[in-house]
Amino acid sequence: MSRPRRPVIALTTDFGLHDNYVGVLHGVILAINRAAVVVDLCHAVPPQDVDAGAFLLGAAYRYFPSDTIHLAVVDPGVGSHRPAIALATPGGTFVGPDNGLFSVAIREQSPGLPAQGGAVSAALLGPRLSVVRLTNPAYFLPRVSATFHGRDVFAPVAAHLASGVPIDRLGEPPETVYLLPAARPVRRPDGTLVAHIVHSDQFGNLTTDLSAAQAEQLPQPLVFRLHGRIVRGLNRYYAEGPELMALIGSSDRVEIAVRNGSAALTLGARVGDEIEVLPAQQ
Amino acid sequence: MSRPRRPVIALTTDFGLHDNYVGVLHGVILAINRAAVVVDLCHAVPPQDVDAGAFLLGAAYRYFPSDTIHLAVVDPGVGSHRPAIALATPGGTFVGPDNGLFSVAIREQSPGLPAQGGAVSAALLGPRLSVVRLTNPAYFLPRVSATFHGRDVFAPVAAHLASGVPIDRLGEPPETVYLLPAARPVRRPDGTLVAHIVHSDQFGNLTTDLSAAQAEQLPQPLVFRLHGRIVRGLNRYYAEGPELMALIGSSDRVEIAVRNGSAALTLGARVGDEIEVLPAQQ
Amino acid sequence: MSRPRRPVIALTTDFGLHDNYVGVLHGVILAINRAAVVVDLCHAVPPQDVDAGAFLLGAAYRYFPSDTIHLAVVDPGVGSHRPAIALATPGGTFVGPDNGLFSVAIREQSPGLPAQGGAVSAALLGPRLSVVRLTNPAYFLPRVSATFHGRDVFAPVAAHLASGVPIDRLGEPPETVYLLPAARPVRRPDGTLVAHIVHSDQFGNLTTDLSAAQAEQLPQPLVFRLHGRIVRGLNRYYAEGPELMALIGSSDRVEIAVRNGSAALTLGARVGDEIEVLPAQQ
Repeated sequence: MSRPRRPVIALTTDFGLHDNYVGVLHGVILAINRAAVVVDLCHAVPPQDVDAGAFLLGAAYRYFPSDTIHLAVVDPGVGSHRPAIALATPGGTFVGPDNGLFSVAIREQSPGLPAQGGAVSAALLGPRLSVVRLTNPAYFLPRVSATFHGRDVFAPVAAHLASGVPIDRLGEPPETVYLLPAARPVRRPDGTLVAHIVHSDQFGNLTTDLSAAQAEQLPQPLVFRLHGRIVRGLNRYYAEGPELMALIGSSDRVEIAVRNGSAALTLGARVGDEIEVLPAQQ
Repeated sequence: MSRPRRPVIALTTDFGLHDNYVGVLHGVILAINRAAVVVDLCHAVPPQDVDAGAFLLGAAYRYFPSDTIHLAVVDPGVGSHRPAIALATPGGTFVGPDNGLFSVAIREQSPGLPAQGGAVSAALLGPRLSVVRLTNPAYFLPRVSATFHGRDVFAPVAAHLASGVPIDRLGEPPETVYLLPAARPVRRPDGTLVAHIVHSDQFGNLTTDLSAAQAEQLPQPLVFRLHGRIVRGLNRYYAEGPELMALIGSSDRVEIAVRNGSAALTLGARVGDEIEVLPAQQ
Repeated sequence: MSRPRRPVIALTTDFGLHDNYVGVLHGVILAINRAAVVVDLCHAVPPQDVDAGAFLLGAAYRYFPSDTIHLAVVDPGVGSHRPAIALATPGGTFVGPDNGLFSVAIREQSPGLPAQGGAVSAALLGPRLSVVRLTNPAYFLPRVSATFHGRDVFAPVAAHLASGVPIDRLGEPPETVYLLPAARPVRRPDGTLVAHIVHSDQFGNLTTDLSAAQAEQLPQPLVFRLHGRIVRGLNRYYAEGPELMALIGSSDRVEIAVRNGSAALTLGARVGDEIEVLPAQQ
């Protein structure tokens, strides 16, 4: 596979911007491939929070060129025997630890996967996805530390991929790939649908795991209960709504927001909190 | 208008770096125009603070190449009927909501505009500026959400402009453009000149709306009073001054600073606070 | 010296990302050299902390292409008579104030320098390094402010260097270069070796000034005492260790870490704190 003149490498990490770690990734990539365009997708994944990383990357990758190489590092198991992978898909190539970090992107492109998490047979990924374990040290830095595989393994591998190295040179196809459980509402025994907060953004808007498509199929108008508060119906945009509102957010999921304010602070709400979808009442 | 080989697109937003929103803007732009150089001018505009965004962009744009496309999003009215604009000027092209965000840049390049804010006739902008409303969906993403026009409207428009699309393809010239009031000192009935803090920076230095040019024309030495403290004269640089000092800052405005410290914390001062310019005393 | 088609300029500052200062550096560079690849190495150096800046740049520069131009600004003396320098080395070219900010990089490439800090004869740098003072205003912005040399002096000089301007056009070789003392453990009169914390990272991992090479030569197993806690031996990686552990970190120095937590918070430890290396006990 030939590469474009300006290959894009997008970085998603939990490194923050307090240190030189992100800068070092840029340096390692440019030292191998001077033509690469290195983009900081997000470095504010909460430390070691693989679920949050999978959400932030999974909601963003489709807006990038489809030949983008997504280098992602949220890696509490660095240095241990957790495998590292590269995964080529129609929507982008993903490089990082095999710990579920690419789950949202993988599930979106392989819709038939089982909803539960764990080590899933790589054969289930289907013919459009190809995956290898990163075992060929020819594409790593000469010295691999035990604590910074982002620098020593993932960045050089991404840079070499951007230079046109075929993915099958990087290692062998694995038996399994690790997936997080699918994020989605659950139904209680009494029939109540329970969604969950999956992200709280810069403005305190709360993204849920209830998709716009699923919400449309429920009886209208929707009524939500969270933190003892009732929210009725879906608004179209922030400026229109009452103080506390629900709307379809920019990631095509139901979102809870406060007009000109922070829903997270107003409600004291956090990622993982439940949102009950109550039976519609006229 | 032909474009340079590497068009520059500079981003100014209130998105912060806590989410994937800034990364997504980069992705959308690169998916449309792979040659673009995307620069993060500032993403720390306080949420929905259009005045602060206008100041931060207005004090920075002239240091960029004059063919830079400035994409700016501080947009409390997103999704409502507030218009969106592209504005070509000799000092850069500006793309974003028509809510005053480009006021400082516009006023600098159209010096004859009225000082008061509001919807101003576009004819007053003069022959060197051209402005259109963004109404042609051919240059948007295929689906436009109600909550993220930065991604769905402004980023694709900026990328297409960078690819050489003429500005008049984007929409029609509007009747009016919305401007914030000119930031400048006011004179009290008793003759006292009152300046205001317009920005507090990373170091706690306080920028005012008193320009170096205006300060030079006042009786010297200048004496300032703010938060009950008196500051005499203008110092040349931080290392030279007394603990609390005034000097001409890097944006050519009078600035209040504390040597090796934070004037904002020392004084408990905030944006909008008044600074009296007292009569000079020998 | 001819320059590559895409010269890399890496920025290390204490500007933070709260303002437009970093964006302005990008703008100034691109206005002079449109081909430059501008990388944000780190902008979170604590304000005016030259030691921290020297550490963060010194631990990162070697991962960048060796023809990178490192523009660094941590500059409490801006506007006063502290000199500004450009320094060409086999591992990169450095542009910034002559206040010790490049000490770690210089010492790594000129191993024979005296360990004490201060103004050191430029002749001691050896034949592989060349240094000039930035005195030629032809390579500055037309107006140089007293408070923002990053914008008015260092960024334009870096951009011109990236365009192929020879370093000796920028000014004259100085008599001396200012260096910080070498960061290294000291031995107390009673024979105890005392290391120091030199950096606390995003995760609360504590980097010390005890190098892996020096640690290997001490009697094993190593026993450390800091903040009244004892840490025995060196672990290989975070996932392996006990709750509080020591290991060789990614910058080849002994690091103190807490598994899935923050050593800085757990211990209440800060940069500068002492770590005693106790006699090995079987």
